[in-house]
Amino acid sequence: MDRKIPVGILGATGVVGQRCIQMLEHHPWFEVAWLAASDRSEGKPYAEAARWRLKTAIPARVASMQISPASPEGAPKIILAALDAAIAAELEPRFADAGCAVISNSSALRMNENVPLLIPEVNADHIRLIDGQSWRKKSGGYVVTNPNCSAIGLVLALAPLHRRFGLDTVMAVTMQAVSGAGYPGVASLDILGNVIPFIRNEEEKMEEETHKLLGSVNGSKIIPAGFAMSAQCNRVAVEDGHTESVSIRLKSKARPEEIIAAWNSYRAEPQELKLPSAPERPIVYVDANDRPQPRFDVDMGAGMSAVVGRLRPCGVLDWKFTVLSHNTIRGAAGAAVLNAELLKAKGYLE
Amino acid sequence: MDRKIPVGILGATGVVGQRCIQMLEHHPWFEVAWLAASDRSEGKPYAEAARWRLKTAIPARVASMQISPASPEGAPKIILAALDAAIAAELEPRFADAGCAVISNSSALRMNENVPLLIPEVNADHIRLIDGQSWRKKSGGYVVTNPNCSAIGLVLALAPLHRRFGLDTVMAVTMQAVSGAGYPGVASLDILGNVIPFIRNEEEKMEEETHKLLGSVNGSKIIPAGFAMSAQCNRVAVEDGHTESVSIRLKSKARPEEIIAAWNSYRAEPQELKLPSAPERPIVYVDANDRPQPRFDVDMGAGMSAVVGRLRPCGVLDWKFTVLSHNTIRGAAGAAVLNAELLKAKGYLE
Amino acid sequence: MDRKIPVGILGATGVVGQRCIQMLEHHPWFEVAWLAASDRSEGKPYAEAARWRLKTAIPARVASMQISPASPEGAPKIILAALDAAIAAELEPRFADAGCAVISNSSALRMNENVPLLIPEVNADHIRLIDGQSWRKKSGGYVVTNPNCSAIGLVLALAPLHRRFGLDTVMAVTMQAVSGAGYPGVASLDILGNVIPFIRNEEEKMEEETHKLLGSVNGSKIIPAGFAMSAQCNRVAVEDGHTESVSIRLKSKARPEEIIAAWNSYRAEPQELKLPSAPERPIVYVDANDRPQPRFDVDMGAGMSAVVGRLRPCGVLDWKFTVLSHNTIRGAAGAAVLNAELLKAKGYLE
Amino acid sequence: MDRKIPVGILGATGVVGQRCIQMLEHHPWFEVAWLAASDRSEGKPYAEAARWRLKTAIPARVASMQISPASPEGAPKIILAALDAAIAAELEPRFADAGCAVISNSSALRMNENVPLLIPEVNADHIRLIDGQSWRKKSGGYVVTNPNCSAIGLVLALAPLHRRFGLDTVMAVTMQAVSGAGYPGVASLDILGNVIPFIRNEEEKMEEETHKLLGSVNGSKIIPAGFAMSAQCNRVAVEDGHTESVSIRLKSKARPEEIIAAWNSYRAEPQELKLPSAPERPIVYVDANDRPQPRFDVDMGAGMSAVVGRLRPCGVLDWKFTVLSHNTIRGAAGAAVLNAELLKAKGYLE
Repeated sequence: MDRKIPVGILGATGVVGQRCIQMLEHHPWFEVAWLAASDRSEGKPYAEAARWRLKTAIPARVASMQISPASPEGAPKIILAALDAAIAAELEPRFADAGCAVISNSSALRMNENVPLLIPEVNADHIRLIDGQSWRKKSGGYVVTNPNCSAIGLVLALAPLHRRFGLDTVMAVTMQAVSGAGYPGVASLDILGNVIPFIRNEEEKMEEETHKLLGSVNGSKIIPAGFAMSAQCNRVAVEDGHTESVSIRLKSKARPEEIIAAWNSYRAEPQELKLPSAPERPIVYVDANDRPQPRFDVDMGAGMSAVVGRLRPCGVLDWKFTVLSHNTIRGAAGAAVLNAELLKAKGYLE
Repeated sequence: MDRKIPVGILGATGVVGQRCIQMLEHHPWFEVAWLAASDRSEGKPYAEAARWRLKTAIPARVASMQISPASPEGAPKIILAALDAAIAAELEPRFADAGCAVISNSSALRMNENVPLLIPEVNADHIRLIDGQSWRKKSGGYVVTNPNCSAIGLVLALAPLHRRFGLDTVMAVTMQAVSGAGYPGVASLDILGNVIPFIRNEEEKMEEETHKLLGSVNGSKIIPAGFAMSAQCNRVAVEDGHTESVSIRLKSKARPEEIIAAWNSYRAEPQELKLPSAPERPIVYVDANDRPQPRFDVDMGAGMSAVVGRLRPCGVLDWKFTVLSHNTIRGAAGAAVLNAELLKAKGYLE
Repeated sequence: MDRKIPVGILGATGVVGQRCIQMLEHHPWFEVAWLAASDRSEGKPYAEAARWRLKTAIPARVASMQISPASPEGAPKIILAALDAAIAAELEPRFADAGCAVISNSSALRMNENVPLLIPEVNADHIRLIDGQSWRKKSGGYVVTNPNCSAIGLVLALAPLHRRFGLDTVMAVTMQAVSGAGYPGVASLDILGNVIPFIRNEEEKMEEETHKLLGSVNGSKIIPAGFAMSAQCNRVAVEDGHTESVSIRLKSKARPEEIIAAWNSYRAEPQELKLPSAPERPIVYVDANDRPQPRFDVDMGAGMSAVVGRLRPCGVLDWKFTVLSHNTIRGAAGAAVLNAELLKAKGYLE
Repeated sequence: MDRKIPVGILGATGVVGQRCIQMLEHHPWFEVAWLAASDRSEGKPYAEAARWRLKTAIPARVASMQISPASPEGAPKIILAALDAAIAAELEPRFADAGCAVISNSSALRMNENVPLLIPEVNADHIRLIDGQSWRKKSGGYVVTNPNCSAIGLVLALAPLHRRFGLDTVMAVTMQAVSGAGYPGVASLDILGNVIPFIRNEEEKMEEETHKLLGSVNGSKIIPAGFAMSAQCNRVAVEDGHTESVSIRLKSKARPEEIIAAWNSYRAEPQELKLPSAPERPIVYVDANDRPQPRFDVDMGAGMSAVVGRLRPCGVLDWKFTVLSHNTIRGAAGAAVLNAELLKAKGYLE
């Protein structure tokens, strides 16, 4: 590949937009070529428009790039979109309509029946929904989405078990990091020394997205997975990393070592295709009895691995365990970038 | 009552011992008359021996009291014991044997079949187990215990539902405060910006204690409650207040307003007897969709009420909700003091 | 006093407005009779308009009060104003012009040469500046202000030393609580596990306000105190309580016990007049070598005492010490309420 | 260099010992060949003996190494010592006496007149003190120390100014991370939402070490630098990174751009010698008005750069600024490793 593929970022100044820029800084295939954000940022250099909240510096090339208007004119054909749902609902269709491949992190279109909700290691075959999109037919454009940051770690942990043993029931209680709410997001007065047992719409998203992600394709439709599920979502004083206490019942009997092997040996298309952002191991089981912990484990696999631990019998269902994943990398920006890589590898970015 | 009843505190320098002293400062019935702690504290004035970690000052009378040896000689007949389990296993029987009423916060003897595990609002009738204790027969002494700090809020929330609708299944995920681990307890390097998905033996205690607490007395035995249960315990960066995400299935159908009414109207013997530390309302349901929260709700009922919120249908069991209780007041020192008050009111401290 | 004096609160929904309401709930002289906030709150009941962030509940009477338009028509004659500076600059003069006694927590008019910047224990005599205000002459209205939350604890600690020994030089480095920035204020992503070495305009305010507060009245003018001063302001992950590391040089020699005595024995007009919100001891020196600490000491004197500790020689100036004060009580709402009480006691609210 | 030089670590299980192991994992010159810790760890594999608190995994080679007795027999000739002061006072001389080069992070011998207290970028010439050590004469062994974690960032920031303009007066107030107290170190109950205005002996160490570090060598003696200095030390809820608010008076006049240039252009022997752990820029001035901050800047120069910001005039002395440095890397383990590298480059490890 001689020249890198130009990529635009919609919502470039937010926490997820920043992560996208960070992940693309040394990307072998893509380069950031266009940035858009809210109206009041338009025309400003990125470094001035964004309140950069990451530990690595703004890539020099991006720092001086000017924020473009958030419209498809002049935008590249590939768009990573990191917008609030309300704005996404308006802008993403407009970009798709204009022929762009919109790779979205927003919840706006995730549950749309023609829009793939993708985790490349889990349901790469859902990608074919694209062909049913009216935008695709009209202009070649389309929309692909990644799941909510609370669903993605859970679904990575569930996928190998669902395939091998069948899921009957899933209960999950989350302890979610503040970066999941964006910036400025959660006020310090709300979260210092506190737990907030509520995140708006989060439980609903977790439940419906998990079913769609683990569903099967039937022609041009997704048949959602049929297991029972319940989610409870809490916010805690953690910067990055959603931790979840999970209980499951499986359809067929499994020994603990089989479950752990199913996790540790799990590889999928992104690993086979050696997609640049695919972690070597999508799921890592840690043996210590007090792990995973956000402080120590959130960056495993460069933030792209789901980290699982504490598998033990459940007094109600069959098994309980803890899963952790990086909410702004695997749960947002990295999810979008990996989706872009999958689309490229599959010929959807020609 | 002309003179107050002298009370001794075993383990007086720890976090729970300190709370006992704080709660007894202006107590209408009891006064602290004797303090014991580890050997290295012996002979020191309390203010020097204890690293006081509460916001109110050490009561002046107590500050200058000298730490006694941890043996029954010279101790008063009523002992609040706030010891580590290993030490409690050795010392509590010795005090009971010597004729003391040992009102213990430790886990050492909680599951002993002759030892009442008491929440006065929940199972005051278990108190009769005392009469089967060999100490009682020999010297008049006995041991009464209160539950683990993670069990007590949950059981308060479950008790009215169990009575009225019958519990079939209980799942609980805790987010527990650092004060539950005592002092120095959890290292700041372990918990700042972190979640620890493990507390040694905590899940086992929660499950077995909940069954005993909600069990029924049959002659001189407790028949544990028969529902299925599973607990997962996490530590979070909160000072005081254990928050729990709970799901339940009930044996008989209940409408949400009936459940809320069952909580809000719940009164029991401590309220009828007007025990000094009994909260007016043992359980308070808060209506806001993002409560209870430790920061705002932990001190409800002077730290003695369990605060419940977010009742909503569960996709797997029937209902889910959040419960919060103050782990060193209702979950430890206040539990012991309320047990002492109940024993007094029932004539067990004569 | 048969009936309480009606008081209005401008900026009633913010963190300081909430504290004012909390402090007036059981006030013997005043009662909240009118509330105003931003346009979008107008007409709503207070409980709906305010995102209440205090541990005690909204007083029932206030919860149902309707938010009035922020204009003097219909407002009571006494106004506690807790507005952002820009809005205060516009609204406070309008209320004063209409005859209101505006007791302001804002920085807008603090340094105005006719406006008293008051700490009742420090410079009650500055109150006479009121008589030079044009509003006073025209309508009887006036504006009185309290200092910035970072200045007030420092000045309380300095005042007795300045009187007794004379201040030559003051250096202060603050570690300020997040509640000082209002709500939502400091984003959790900015402050969790962090220190922010910058608070806009704070150092300038601390320096100029300290000089004015400790200045002397000459006819109708304040001659600012003449000592050299330098402030550095930092934000830390504390909820309530500004801690300051201070070094001073005195004009006359002082022994440490004299300094401590100057603090501990300090009483002023609010104590003599027994103003309801005046702490018994405006300054409390704590002996322990690791105090004061926000967690343990911030509520001393119901949050109205400045707490000082660690007096020791300074290798550059004469002495160094730590001072702590509650930034939203003594540093804001309580400062305003105490000013109101002083004005009442002095006959300025007739 | 064909084979790496074997290095032993005394106090290998503590926070600083862990950082040493982490920093030596891929070191081009040194490799960990021997580990010692307290008696109770002896004989255990390192992974079992240490409670590893870093985000990167224990190097595999080290994980299985067995903990040796803490005595010179069998130890390599080069020892990085990360011991508590009391133990260091006993063990370090014993290792030096046995011919070891003891490169110590402890305070025990820092102020000993024959022991160099070294920051390679600041006072590499102090290394010659080694030749006056009796151990050196007897067995070839010696002790070299690095400063306290609170002194090192400050001294890096001061050194170029002292050389170029001369220091007259220094005042520093620190806000120190919890990792500076080791593990378990600061209890979470002590620091969550709190500031502790006291760290035992820290202010004394900062003051005397700063004077020794910036002192000059006269024959075989150090003449301490002569400026006036005062330090105040606070603990805050930060994981890694000591932030300091500093004021200085210089002997000769300096313009701010000259000061900033003195910092940014500062290079010294470690940079010239290209020592492996030497940061390209020992001091980095950041322009943003609210930096440096631990969250964003602590890892600059792989944790080996001091980060300075907010240079502005001081109302009492000449200038004030903020300095941040990584307390367990530049302030401890990295300081020791860099000292080892300097000793190697200078021929002291032959």
